[in-house]
Amino acid sequence: MTNRLPVPRIALTPGEPAGIGPDLCVQLAQRDLPCEIVVIASQQLLEQRAVQLGLPIQFREFDGALPANAQVAGCVTILPVELAEPVQSGKLNSANSRYVLKTITKATKGCMDAVFDAMVTGPVHKGIINDSGLSFSGHTEFIAGITGGHPVMMLATPGLRVALATTHLPLSEVSRAITHTRLRTVIRILDHDLRSRFGIAHPKILVCGLNPHAGENGHLGKEEIDIIEPVLDSFRKQGVILQGPLPADTLFTDKYLATADAVLAMYHDQGLPVLKHMGFGQAVNITLGLPIIRTSVDHGTALDLAGSGKADLGSLQFALQTALTMAAQ
Amino acid sequence: MTNRLPVPRIALTPGEPAGIGPDLCVQLAQRDLPCEIVVIASQQLLEQRAVQLGLPIQFREFDGALPANAQVAGCVTILPVELAEPVQSGKLNSANSRYVLKTITKATKGCMDAVFDAMVTGPVHKGIINDSGLSFSGHTEFIAGITGGHPVMMLATPGLRVALATTHLPLSEVSRAITHTRLRTVIRILDHDLRSRFGIAHPKILVCGLNPHAGENGHLGKEEIDIIEPVLDSFRKQGVILQGPLPADTLFTDKYLATADAVLAMYHDQGLPVLKHMGFGQAVNITLGLPIIRTSVDHGTALDLAGSGKADLGSLQFALQTALTMAAQ
Repeated sequence: MTNRLPVPRIALTPGEPAGIGPDLCVQLAQRDLPCEIVVIASQQLLEQRAVQLGLPIQFREFDGALPANAQVAGCVTILPVELAEPVQSGKLNSANSRYVLKTITKATKGCMDAVFDAMVTGPVHKGIINDSGLSFSGHTEFIAGITGGHPVMMLATPGLRVALATTHLPLSEVSRAITHTRLRTVIRILDHDLRSRFGIAHPKILVCGLNPHAGENGHLGKEEIDIIEPVLDSFRKQGVILQGPLPADTLFTDKYLATADAVLAMYHDQGLPVLKHMGFGQAVNITLGLPIIRTSVDHGTALDLAGSGKADLGSLQFALQTALTMAAQ
Repeated sequence: MTNRLPVPRIALTPGEPAGIGPDLCVQLAQRDLPCEIVVIASQQLLEQRAVQLGLPIQFREFDGALPANAQVAGCVTILPVELAEPVQSGKLNSANSRYVLKTITKATKGCMDAVFDAMVTGPVHKGIINDSGLSFSGHTEFIAGITGGHPVMMLATPGLRVALATTHLPLSEVSRAITHTRLRTVIRILDHDLRSRFGIAHPKILVCGLNPHAGENGHLGKEEIDIIEPVLDSFRKQGVILQGPLPADTLFTDKYLATADAVLAMYHDQGLPVLKHMGFGQAVNITLGLPIIRTSVDHGTALDLAGSGKADLGSLQFALQTALTMAAQ
């Protein structure tokens, strides 16, 4: 039954063991897939969750042999990492935080070493990791700490990609964070990765203003005039295709989106409400600017759904599909 | 042909005479309508634009007689206001700024005097009015200056109403503007007007956090804990149905929106991108908190389209329909 054609090999980390991450891995394992998925996790955890879900599962330990094998329904290729303590679905336990970080570290290093073509991450619980005494501000920063690079967060759903100039900042700090340097870095990476990771030869990027109505010629804020416009102009001289700064409330309409490859929003709640409105259940979080390919589900640990069989595979499937598309470039 | 059944009487101001406002009035006049529309404008301007558009039009001067007459296609009821100078489509002229404000003033006073049941406004051009030496920060403030009251901006499109706690402020000033007092005022008006103007007996309002992830328990900003939550709690004790503060990027999904009557966003670009994405071409701007009913189109003057016949009537129709719904309460 094994398909010996060369296929991509993707590392998959389930994330928080008490959440729906393990459920999603077991659910995904029920399908034939055009790639090899290597789940980096505790085998015991996946076995236990499969029993809870009433789904059949077999394991094959990952041995690194090439070529990779396309996944056959019902069988998981696993790179085992041991839990510190057994997991109860839905119950956070800080004893297992080190385990969570170990799975992400193994996936990241495997991508750096070209053992994996990409990594796809399930949801972690920041709070419980920090409760364990480990400092952890998020997947993205943790992975970039290993790989180097300047991470840029982009979310995508069919029909829309939104990258963010700033991410998890209090709103009161956003204006100060929009600097020439930051914008230059983010636009350079966004343009570069749309070309290199998505195969778009001449990406067209729409850029939001920071202020309402993109500042209305300086009447509603000066950042567009002082910072955004000069940065966009300097990129345009290099041939980068940028439109903006545009008012965010008109940018996200078909008139503009129809011809664009990505939107650059200045901050989290300017760009993501539309994206999640359009794509909830089928959105992916992509980290640009790294030397590896990393995509992630776009939802949390959903502790209350762990083991229930109600976890929705949509976002993980889209994250996997996006990783495969990027790896094919 | 005149329908003598009592119907509502709605004042309509075309706004900037060089923009598409007059086009929309002429286009609207081509239809039978279940209300009397009184266009407050220069008759010469509308005649001239009708010729440009190749549309037939007749005029009946408004005499205030009751009952109002339902509009018959091809005939406009007009309350004339004289232009200072003739208008060329698409060419702004500050000489006519006083004319623009006079039309709005007449509509507003007519609503205050119960001559009109509501007013619907076309797009004005703030810049040219200010260039003329008149101080004008927007329709809403100008109207509230006549009527009194505390205006609250709400935009609506089929399936979504979004009210704003702050409106046209630089982003860097938004956090400071979210005060207990402001939030209390806005929520009181929003809840009140959903009941009184929209006939919703028990309105359910979803409230956005200010910060990404609604502050993530204070890790991404404290305004939710210090200001928003205490204000919501105090309203809940009075029986107001409020859910939040919710992360803006998950709030605008069907799971939440399906059961809500309105969303309260903390600022312009948090709430309006989704609304305009959902409803562009069919969105209405409603001013709550006034002693009169006022709705407005949700687009600008589109100077380049004036006289072309390409102006889209969608927003004006929805603004009129909303005014009629509100007037019927």
